[in-house]
Order: sequence, then C-alpha cells, then structure tokens
Amino acid sequence: MKQNIYDHPVFFKEYTSLRKSSVTYNDFIEQPAIKSEISTLRDKSILDLGCGTGEFAMYCMENGAAKVVGVDISENMIEQAKRENHHENIEYICMPIEDLALENQKFDIIISSLAVHYIEDYTSLVVKVNDWLKHNGEFIFSTEHPIVTARKEGNNWVKDEDDHKLHWALDHYQEEGKREQHWYIDGVVKYHRTISTLVNTLIENGLVLEKITEPQSIPDGLERMPKLVNEKRRPSFIVMKSRKNK
Amino acid sequence: MKQNIYDHPVFFKEYTSLRKSSVTYNDFIEQPAIKSEISTLRDKSILDLGCGTGEFAMYCMENGAAKVVGVDISENMIEQAKRENHHENIEYICMPIEDLALENQKFDIIISSLAVHYIEDYTSLVVKVNDWLKHNGEFIFSTEHPIVTARKEGNNWVKDEDDHKLHWALDHYQEEGKREQHWYIDGVVKYHRTISTLVNTLIENGLVLEKITEPQSIPDGLERMPKLVNEKRRPSFIVMKSRKNK
Repeated sequence: MKQNIYDHPVFFKEYTSLRKSSVTYNDFIEQPAIKSEISTLRDKSILDLGCGTGEFAMYCMENGAAKVVGVDISENMIEQAKRENHHENIEYICMPIEDLALENQKFDIIISSLAVHYIEDYTSLVVKVNDWLKHNGEFIFSTEHPIVTARKEGNNWVKDEDDHKLHWALDHYQEEGKREQHWYIDGVVKYHRTISTLVNTLIENGLVLEKITEPQSIPDGLERMPKLVNEKRRPSFIVMKSRKNK
Repeated sequence: MKQNIYDHPVFFKEYTSLRKSSVTYNDFIEQPAIKSEISTLRDKSILDLGCGTGEFAMYCMENGAAKVVGVDISENMIEQAKRENHHENIEYICMPIEDLALENQKFDIIISSLAVHYIEDYTSLVVKVNDWLKHNGEFIFSTEHPIVTARKEGNNWVKDEDDHKLHWALDHYQEEGKREQHWYIDGVVKYHRTISTLVNTLIENGLVLEKITEPQSIPDGLERMPKLVNEKRRPSFIVMKSRKNK
C-alpha cells in the first residue's frame, strides 16, 4: 500500500504549521535549487509529481506556463491546493504518483519536489516519466540525499556533551530500500537509494543527465535559520536535472 | 608544485610491498570495476593517466589493444613499468599528468585509476581529456569517493571501546579542496570534490555521463580480505564512465 502520511491528522496539523511558519529547509535550499534548474516556464506544459498544496503549480502559472497538472496522494493537500492555488489552467489530481496513468498527454517539463524518496519502485517511475515527456523535455527532481537516508538507525548528527555537532554518522550506504523514521509521527517510510542508482536508472531509461545539484542555503536562509550552515557539512538534498533523448 | 609521493623512498618501499602482497583494495574493488566499464579494448588506442607500474597497460595489450600511452609522475614507477611491463606498443612517459601535452594524438579510451584525487585542477584535466579523445571515445576514471575525502580531520570509522566500527564520520562535504593525510608518510595531499562537481565538470565540457559505479568487493575479495565487507557501509571509490559527444 502506498503511504499517505499527509492525511494522518497529527502529521497534517504539524506539517501545515511548519510550512505556514515560512522558514523551512524547502524554502531556502530545495525550492530555490529546483527552480533554478528550469530553463523556462513560458508556454510550457508541466506535470508536478507530488504537488502538495499547489504553491509550485501557481508559481508556474505566474511565470507564464501554459498548463500544469499537479498530482498528490493526499486529499488534505489537494483540497487546500484547490482552495488556495486555484487557476483555470491548473488541474489537480488526487492519486498516488505510482497509480498515475496519463494517456495522450505529453509534457515539456516534469517536476518532482521531495517525493521520489517515498516511491518504492523508482525504475517504474522513471520509465513512466520518460513516456510522459515530449522529446527534449526536462525531468527535474529533488530527493533526500543518499548521505542522509543511508543509515538505518535514523540518520543523525553525533554530538558532544555540550550539544555541539561533531560529525554526521553514515552507514549502510549500499543497502538500498526501506527506512523508517519518526517525523511528527512514527513509521514514516522513505526509500534509500545510492547516487549510482539515482543516476544510472535515468540514463538506462532514455534520459540524459544534465546536472546534479547538492544545494546549500540561499543567503537569506542563513540569516533567518542559522542552523542551515550545517548544510555545508553534509547536504540534505540532491537535485537531478535530465532531458529526454532528442 | 605537483606532489610526487611515489618517489619518496619510505612511501615507495611501503607501497611496493603493499601491492606485492596481492591483497589490496585495488585488486578486489577498484580494478574489477574500472575494467568492467570498458566496452572493448580490441584494436583501441588507450591513454592511461597515472599508469603506475604498467599492469593495466599490459592488461590492455593482452586484451587486444593497438597501443597504450602510460603517463606517471614517478620515476620509480615508470622504471619498474619499463622493466616489468615492457611491450613494443606501450609507450611510458614520466611526467605529471597536469603537464602532459599531446599534439596530433587522439585516443579511443582514456583511463585514470585513482589519480584524479591528486589533481588540483580537475576542470583543466577534463578539458584536456576531451581534446585527446576521438569522437565517441570513452573517459573512464576512478577516484576516492567524496564520502571518504570530505572530512578534514582525516576520514575514519568511529569505533566503540571493543574496536567495533559504529559508523563512518562525515563532515565538511561542501568545502572542496586540499586534504592532507598520513599514508605511510605525513602530508599526502588529496583533493576533495563533491559528487556534483565530479559529474557536472564532465558534462559542462562536452562529455556525456554514461554510468556511475560505487563498487563493492568482488566475492573473492570478501573471502581473502574480510574487512572489505565494510565497503557496504560506505564506498571507498567512485567510478565515472563518460563519452565524448558524438
């Protein structure tokens, strides 16, 4: 069964209040990085896999996109998206990404922001993405960095008795698969994959890798959320940009 | 000044005795990985950057290569190569890789085994490699994994009081540049680069990334050198295969 933590009442409440506070890792690290990889949104058709509450879909419209299809497993998220980020050229679909079947629709750009680590079958996703892309179309996604997802015990900073971070604990790198962690609620499941799997699966399925980004915080983030300086010590996220073979 | 640890008398003695023992990380992890990435050696012209004592050059000849040019900074290594791995179609050049200038010579395959982490200016190397490659030629190199080179204090296992390895200590990932360590002698200098730098520099300079490998030990290695099981916990090496744009 596909996991839908975002419709868990405790999780959704905590998560919503986190995002509302407007100082999150996403705003200062991941979103600036993923947005900077998009060549242009003007007149483009976009598929957003894991669209959440539709902020990115609306950002696309504000930047001249022709249409956006946003997909998310969470009813809570999609309801909020329809309420807060409604647009006649945005279509929201409430469905697990893994179940999505789009016939006779091709996109210029497929984006997925921090959803790939929830997907068990990465290869099937990449095969479908390639099928949904127009020739020369872009697939840009962010995911938790393998350095962060690798360790089974829960990846974490090792600290001294004064709570100073000594180093990041890494382990089990080559053992891909399920990782359970506590994130507001117990048993949040993510999937660890190595860098080589993330990259080679794209290439083996007809995509050309154009760029890897291991983003650090933008300057504004360092000012408002000083702990983001730790991103220099080990990256939380990785962004891959690839293009369908011409 | 380019570093030439291999001509340091203490280092060379220790290193030679390590390699002679025939149970090394290179034999069981790195060399099988790099060799498996080569499409075919038959009738190919090969440039080996950091050829050491010429074992790989001779392997190429044994597998049908047309010619090999092997380059190494160390006089000790090149002398031994000429003595032990002499072949009329192998040319050995004693020179820092960084100083190599090859005019009117193009190669089908350029290999570099565990030398790139000694090179300060990776971009210049990639530009030159691209120039030395024939169209559709392959550039395959191995280097120490960024997970291993990142931490400034000397990257190492954190152990408990019974000497069991608890986890790998990672730090300073985004701070690229010089790392000094003790490896038989003090002050061995290597250069840390992130995964994104290793990959993007290839792509920005006209190479298409074909595959990343984070090799584990071959089964024989696990039997003869049981500690290689730790490679599952964090990879020592990374191998990149790229191809000159057609």
